[in-house]
Amino acid sequence: MDHLFEKTIKTTPIYQGKVIDLQVDDVTLPNGKKSKREIVKHPGAVAILPITKEGKLVLVRQYRKALDKVIVEIPAGKLERGEEPDAAARRELEEETGYRSEKLHYLISFYTSPGFADELIHLYECADLEKGQGALDADEFLDVLEVTLEEAEQMIRDQTIYDAKTAFAVQYMKLKEVGRT
Amino acid sequence: MDHLFEKTIKTTPIYQGKVIDLQVDDVTLPNGKKSKREIVKHPGAVAILPITKEGKLVLVRQYRKALDKVIVEIPAGKLERGEEPDAAARRELEEETGYRSEKLHYLISFYTSPGFADELIHLYECADLEKGQGALDADEFLDVLEVTLEEAEQMIRDQTIYDAKTAFAVQYMKLKEVGRT
Repeated sequence: MDHLFEKTIKTTPIYQGKVIDLQVDDVTLPNGKKSKREIVKHPGAVAILPITKEGKLVLVRQYRKALDKVIVEIPAGKLERGEEPDAAARRELEEETGYRSEKLHYLISFYTSPGFADELIHLYECADLEKGQGALDADEFLDVLEVTLEEAEQMIRDQTIYDAKTAFAVQYMKLKEVGRT
Repeated sequence: MDHLFEKTIKTTPIYQGKVIDLQVDDVTLPNGKKSKREIVKHPGAVAILPITKEGKLVLVRQYRKALDKVIVEIPAGKLERGEEPDAAARRELEEETGYRSEKLHYLISFYTSPGFADELIHLYECADLEKGQGALDADEFLDVLEVTLEEAEQMIRDQTIYDAKTAFAVQYMKLKEVGRT
């Protein structure tokens, strides 16, 4: 697939942040022309589709500074340095919702914005939730909601749910539901 | 929902690029503490779920510099300045695949990475594709594939399809298929 590849001539670091780094790569395109690629480096993240014993979906409502908006999402968070994705999924679920479960089931991983970022999200399903012992993380500012599949679908229509991983998770839940009937 | 909001104290522009800009905002958290938010500004994008008259899904295989990988995605591209999403969807479909269609149907919009970026993707379904008149865009380096739903599902399992919007689109197609039977 050499007719698709770009060759890196030079990498220029622009910014090293707490969550992301930015670099600009000078590249040679497959036709020999030169171009530049703006690339955001991200440590990767996990997201969890948590289902209560009553079959409800647990969601978090939070403010997202990048959007200047409050939206509702499945619990998620970035990987700590050296942390395994399944450990991160258990940690984020409990920190954000107070729930825990032994039944953690890996579903899928996907890049969120392959055009400019390398963020990879690992998505897990977590069933038969139990209330954990710990207090919620004091540095997380969020509300925990428990909704039915129908309520989640309505939240997609009215843009209360407004992000890719959560829309994927709701559709996944719907597919399981349809498969069951 | 004042218990969720962050107040901006200062915005520091870091980089203005061809595709993205980076800024760092100093904020006051709901508990009064100070923090910083690294924010990527993006013009927004469209993606298209194109279905041929034979019911096949049209995909593009392309190299993504941010990942240093070739992956397979639904056709997509960023909005040009002042461009309406449905016009962008028609343009990107034809530039990337050579197909066009009068039947453009809006499905959903979602943020891809609300933790650090404001990229919003508008997703359209496009049925009954016709071969367009124009040549493929000479600046696009990609292969066009036509696959069945089953083949697309296999491509998700083996990580040939490895991005959120495409995984969502394949699941959407599956839900329609399940609904039909």
